[in-house]
Amino acid sequence: EVLNNMARVPPLLTDLYQFTMAYAYWRAGRHQEPAAFELFFRDNPFGGGFSLFAGLHDCLLFVRSFRFTDEDVEFLRSVLPPATEPAFFQFLRGLDCSGVMLRSVPEGTVVFARVPLMEVAGPLAVVQLLETSLLCLVNYASLVCSNAARFRLAAGPRRKLLEMGLRRAQGPDGGLTASRYTHIGGFDLTSNVQAGFLFGVPVAGTMAHSYVTSFTSLEEVWPQTLVAVNGDPDPVDFISLTKGWLTRVCELLRAEHGKIREGELAAFLSYAIAYPQNFLPVIDSYSVGCSGLLNFCAVALALCELGYRPVGVRLDSGDLCRQSVDVRRVFRLCSEQFSISAFDSLIIVGTNNISEQSMAELNKKNEIDVVGVGTHLVTCTKQPSLGCVYKLVEVRGRPRMKISEDPEKSTVPGRKHVYRLIDAEGHPFLDLQCLAVEPPPEAGVSLSCYPLGCDNSSVSVTPAQVVCLRCIKHRGPTSQTHLLYGVLSHQVALSEKLHNLVTEIRRGNSNNSNFLLAN
Amino acid sequence: EVLNNMARVPPLLTDLYQFTMAYAYWRAGRHQEPAAFELFFRDNPFGGGFSLFAGLHDCLLFVRSFRFTDEDVEFLRSVLPPATEPAFFQFLRGLDCSGVMLRSVPEGTVVFARVPLMEVAGPLAVVQLLETSLLCLVNYASLVCSNAARFRLAAGPRRKLLEMGLRRAQGPDGGLTASRYTHIGGFDLTSNVQAGFLFGVPVAGTMAHSYVTSFTSLEEVWPQTLVAVNGDPDPVDFISLTKGWLTRVCELLRAEHGKIREGELAAFLSYAIAYPQNFLPVIDSYSVGCSGLLNFCAVALALCELGYRPVGVRLDSGDLCRQSVDVRRVFRLCSEQFSISAFDSLIIVGTNNISEQSMAELNKKNEIDVVGVGTHLVTCTKQPSLGCVYKLVEVRGRPRMKISEDPEKSTVPGRKHVYRLIDAEGHPFLDLQCLAVEPPPEAGVSLSCYPLGCDNSSVSVTPAQVVCLRCIKHRGPTSQTHLLYGVLSHQVALSEKLHNLVTEIRRGNSNNSNFLLAN
Repeated sequence: EVLNNMARVPPLLTDLYQFTMAYAYWRAGRHQEPAAFELFFRDNPFGGGFSLFAGLHDCLLFVRSFRFTDEDVEFLRSVLPPATEPAFFQFLRGLDCSGVMLRSVPEGTVVFARVPLMEVAGPLAVVQLLETSLLCLVNYASLVCSNAARFRLAAGPRRKLLEMGLRRAQGPDGGLTASRYTHIGGFDLTSNVQAGFLFGVPVAGTMAHSYVTSFTSLEEVWPQTLVAVNGDPDPVDFISLTKGWLTRVCELLRAEHGKIREGELAAFLSYAIAYPQNFLPVIDSYSVGCSGLLNFCAVALALCELGYRPVGVRLDSGDLCRQSVDVRRVFRLCSEQFSISAFDSLIIVGTNNISEQSMAELNKKNEIDVVGVGTHLVTCTKQPSLGCVYKLVEVRGRPRMKISEDPEKSTVPGRKHVYRLIDAEGHPFLDLQCLAVEPPPEAGVSLSCYPLGCDNSSVSVTPAQVVCLRCIKHRGPTSQTHLLYGVLSHQVALSEKLHNLVTEIRRGNSNNSNFLLAN
Repeated sequence: EVLNNMARVPPLLTDLYQFTMAYAYWRAGRHQEPAAFELFFRDNPFGGGFSLFAGLHDCLLFVRSFRFTDEDVEFLRSVLPPATEPAFFQFLRGLDCSGVMLRSVPEGTVVFARVPLMEVAGPLAVVQLLETSLLCLVNYASLVCSNAARFRLAAGPRRKLLEMGLRRAQGPDGGLTASRYTHIGGFDLTSNVQAGFLFGVPVAGTMAHSYVTSFTSLEEVWPQTLVAVNGDPDPVDFISLTKGWLTRVCELLRAEHGKIREGELAAFLSYAIAYPQNFLPVIDSYSVGCSGLLNFCAVALALCELGYRPVGVRLDSGDLCRQSVDVRRVFRLCSEQFSISAFDSLIIVGTNNISEQSMAELNKKNEIDVVGVGTHLVTCTKQPSLGCVYKLVEVRGRPRMKISEDPEKSTVPGRKHVYRLIDAEGHPFLDLQCLAVEPPPEAGVSLSCYPLGCDNSSVSVTPAQVVCLRCIKHRGPTSQTHLLYGVLSHQVALSEKLHNLVTEIRRGNSNNSNFLLAN
């Protein structure tokens, strides 16, 4: 896994201007100046009240393996301006991140807009060079992880969720990133085998329509027999057994034989004979009511007669809620009529272009146990990018601040610690940014702070508990997230000292510059 | 490059159900049956009239290197049902694509909805296993390539376009794929160094705001001297020279000294001393009119005095059109006032959350020479996924057709050739799908065909020229695309024989099935 990830984030995977800037720093002798950048986003994605932070694992692998090969350096020599001094390329060749300190919130943490999620401190030229790659690794991972969490919130805790977006993702790695981080965001399963292989995400899947349409007649079913689970070792003619059940099912449901598709039955039979304990076909290739459901029931009843437990069905088109209710009714009818209790625990999988909105609508009357989500999950159609930025906050111990005419785009200067304050009921209610040199807030002690977006009005709060948010230094385990509910009222605030620093810099900034006159 | 690509598309990067289906085929002895799938999309993306096909190069690499390692097979053993026979894993271990024939339209071709872009023929189990990976490789590549073409059409042929979306793409590979295929779609440049390294895309970029904000005073500028291009070998005090120009520029423009940012000037000076021939700073870190533009002009005039040619400026916020006009006016004024003709050829780069819509709006009065596009280009916000599908069209020489209640979702059966018909003016006007066994249409000979979406009405057409569209067999060079203009009237049609086959299968399908009664 390490090798695989190292291979995919080479240090050239960045914007060219990082190198031209690094050269200019180097040329001015500023490349070793201690500097700190902060990574954060300005707005919670999807118009929501929170985000999940993800991508840390990949960032750590990237930082640890950051090193230019001779080939990389030769390529840079060919694209940087000819004026670039040769010694700069020797400098690059010797570079690594041993002087870089990364402090981050843990993978999968619930986070909020304008809270610095990661601080990258080290030599100015080096931390500048890391910008684009770190943003690339965090932006999509956090976005898709947050999207998954929203689908999970919409689905409720009971339903199982399956990610199946590989074919619509931004290439192989987009698909892998989606599978990995939607799992952290609350999905149970993925269809992506490589994600199972690399990251241990549980994989699932059974049958596509092409499998069904590849069959035309019962003559293609082979072998045609199946041995019962217990008892008689003699193989049973599974086709005849199923045909018998099909007749009984048609009678029970007063269905027309004539509309049943032979190719579909052949496909189900063939699959059931191959995997008698894993029978979960897609039943809408032709018509659920007139063919697919009848064929499923016949094969599943035949399996039950031989002692196997069929798993369920997949619906992939039309009104999933209504169909699932109809299907469940037929399952119950079969269970009662034929005294087959296995039909009471069949599962219904729904997969049909599910969006967060349609997921929420699934909370009306339906019988769907597992929902598969592809396109809308991995492409994050509702907002396909997260605007994480990476801003300079300190150089040579001096706080740096970007002052923009747009107050939203101004940055908060200085190196900081971030604390999450918890109330007496155990609910987090505020993320407090303090200067790194300040003592941490204490549980039970009242403090004054300045919530962001409330200008100059301070509030007084008393945390029952204080958690240091950016506790991951340079390395940390990946953990499944614990979703916070009711996060909409969460605030982000600056400590009094940090607020004073901002005010001071703004004031200094408004003094007229006089360097033209100075010398 | 080959190794890099091979490493990133392992054969496990697919949906689990491809393996369960492959097993069921294998178990039924059907895995070697000759089969053919077709890859196509049902609707042109972005509500447009065409798409560009891309991703072929990656597909060919994937198919050529398709092979399971022992480790892959062991992992599959752990996730497939325990009933899977051991011999199946031996079968997988020995598998490759030597029996697979891929016929495709060339990389970067202008294509249309419902035209089969790629035919994948070979042993049923193998071509089934390729589905998800091929879709993953084609879907995003074609989408982002088409998106780039739309930006190019909106920008017109003159303006240079720079792709700079790496930090907002779906991870490292999403970013690389974007850089590569937006170039095929009509972008001139990328900021992504690795894309230059791997694929030879021209790279560009100069300076970010963080570089500017990292400077606070002129004391940080070092060295402070620059040698003139020709003539005097003695270094000139570049800071003093620039200050002199700044005073003259302020006088010319009647600007206040007091609002000029010293840190910004220091950043520009330092950069210009490092790269005197490549000076193109970002000038909106504080205020374009009150600081950035003045600082740029001063440094650029000083460079000109020493015989260097400054390149231009980048605008990254606000109303790009209006600002570019203002900036150009100042450039002209400086050129006239100071007789510096280099100021007549300065370029203006605009980069500020550009969408296809805002690109089109750039066609109103403005002076922008190069446009950088990130988020909206790489995430394809307008439609973040292309719905390419992969459908079975033939098994054992028998055409297969999916008949859906939704006529849009029905497939066209049988193996085909696709011809692009060109009219007497050299304009393509129709893509004709014929059965593979039919003779090709001939130039100058009238033929009857059935345009898709017009039901059963045939039209008669006479092509002046006929091009076989899917001419790439198994391998082909990547070529820059030639954009077709006026493609909105392009039609897609079936040959008479193919239309007859569809009719015949539909008719056969409507006959009642009687297999229940048959034996």
